[in-house]
Amino acid sequence: MEDRTHREQASPETRKRIQDSFARQGLMSHLGARITHIAQGRVHIVLPARPEVTQQHGYFHAGATSAIADTAGGYAGFTLFPEDTEVLTVEYKINLLAPALGDHLEAVGTVLKSGRTLTVCQLEVFAAQDGGRKLIANGQQTLICVSRP
Amino acid sequence: MEDRTHREQASPETRKRIQDSFARQGLMSHLGARITHIAQGRVHIVLPARPEVTQQHGYFHAGATSAIADTAGGYAGFTLFPEDTEVLTVEYKINLLAPALGDHLEAVGTVLKSGRTLTVCQLEVFAAQDGGRKLIANGQQTLICVSRP
Amino acid sequence: MEDRTHREQASPETRKRIQDSFARQGLMSHLGARITHIAQGRVHIVLPARPEVTQQHGYFHAGATSAIADTAGGYAGFTLFPEDTEVLTVEYKINLLAPALGDHLEAVGTVLKSGRTLTVCQLEVFAAQDGGRKLIANGQQTLICVSRP
Amino acid sequence: MEDRTHREQASPETRKRIQDSFARQGLMSHLGARITHIAQGRVHIVLPARPEVTQQHGYFHAGATSAIADTAGGYAGFTLFPEDTEVLTVEYKINLLAPALGDHLEAVGTVLKSGRTLTVCQLEVFAAQDGGRKLIANGQQTLICVSRP
Repeated sequence: MEDRTHREQASPETRKRIQDSFARQGLMSHLGARITHIAQGRVHIVLPARPEVTQQHGYFHAGATSAIADTAGGYAGFTLFPEDTEVLTVEYKINLLAPALGDHLEAVGTVLKSGRTLTVCQLEVFAAQDGGRKLIANGQQTLICVSRP
Repeated sequence: MEDRTHREQASPETRKRIQDSFARQGLMSHLGARITHIAQGRVHIVLPARPEVTQQHGYFHAGATSAIADTAGGYAGFTLFPEDTEVLTVEYKINLLAPALGDHLEAVGTVLKSGRTLTVCQLEVFAAQDGGRKLIANGQQTLICVSRP
Repeated sequence: MEDRTHREQASPETRKRIQDSFARQGLMSHLGARITHIAQGRVHIVLPARPEVTQQHGYFHAGATSAIADTAGGYAGFTLFPEDTEVLTVEYKINLLAPALGDHLEAVGTVLKSGRTLTVCQLEVFAAQDGGRKLIANGQQTLICVSRP
Repeated sequence: MEDRTHREQASPETRKRIQDSFARQGLMSHLGARITHIAQGRVHIVLPARPEVTQQHGYFHAGATSAIADTAGGYAGFTLFPEDTEVLTVEYKINLLAPALGDHLEAVGTVLKSGRTLTVCQLEVFAAQDGGRKLIANGQQTLICVSRP
């Protein structure tokens, strides 16, 4: 899987377009999230553990988990969009499968179906700890491609 | 509606239990969110606009919108739970209906169906600007009541 | 609520357009469902109880519940669409809140947000028995408006 | 995939328990659906095309698509439940990815996360035509395990 991931890296133009957009997201830098991989139709975002992203029991807050999942899916769709378009999230649904405890979270957004107007992505979030990796959230997202104003 | 809201305020014990739990959520204070109303089965959370909660176009990030919606729903359910229990989000789904632009967001979580194990909430997020208030996100959430360890 | 419902009846043209489309849905007549009310932005569908729509315990099957909910929402959106367009369901999410037991189900689809391309509806399903009426399912649906080929 | 599927067939007891339950679902036989495979944590249901399961354009109705998806997921979860329990659908979300056109539909429900109380499944529906097979719907479902009364 990892090998396939690295072979599939998106073009430098696509990666730059997404990194530039990501850098303008105040929330992502405020949370401490960063993009770690941009493939055609798949984007990975990592969020390190720190007190600023916790819920009341010290785990990652579902809101932080969802924020990186939604963003990973949005940019995964965006890798396949034409120039001069923007991506908006129409809706998403996420199941929190297990307590989000670990050194960091990794959200993976993957395009399931790419259309001219609508794109559907799978959202997965893994918690990484001591070399292990566990699926802690799974979701599904609908994106819309809109012309840039 | 507003009058009804204020008449319905939860008991001091319930409000304290929820304010204490909320204060332990690192993410909520990091985002600048605060609870503004706690009724039986309904909780309101306000998030002021600032660069730290934006997406790439300067609107509120869907992740911030979702984080306060999920939290409002979770505590709305929690107002109806017995002592010595905790609330966990099983899953939620949210539609982003309009660009989230305004002075602040207000998330309202309302219990639709309260059960012994599972509780279902409606999630609404409004953007407030210049005295107006617009529904910008709508969702549905499933919570589980678990015994405190 | 009932009074408001009846005052709000859609135009004869809209009602005819929807009744004609509904009549072409093989599944709805096979299940025994019928449209009972068409307002601007809201449609009601009734499904009488019979063995052909049950799950293993004799309740209404979640698939039957969902089928009328999805259809009620789709036509609710369709009441607001321009001529020469069609409605497609993009996605929906539904919570089954209580056992679906009764003489008949009534699904109510209501437009929450109507846009040029996408429309979001609330879905509610009630079970009616002995004069009472209970919410047994609640959902949310995204529709797309497409030009007729 | 197919090979793995066939190796993984559930025990005769589990398969009998599920076939017996399925046979009591009035809706499934009324639609003409049948279970074609029961593995541990995965169930396949096939629905042949016929006028009784169509929407207004002659495609499979989203309600029929959802009904077999929900049922496949429910029984997939049920294969992993202890004796003397029942399965109920808490909620599900489904995206209709493409027009559901073909000789038959095949719904595949697969357990993603199995817990003592809650189980989360992935739902996929494929349309089969002329030897080809296309993903036309994708969803996610939450089930609850309840003691038999």
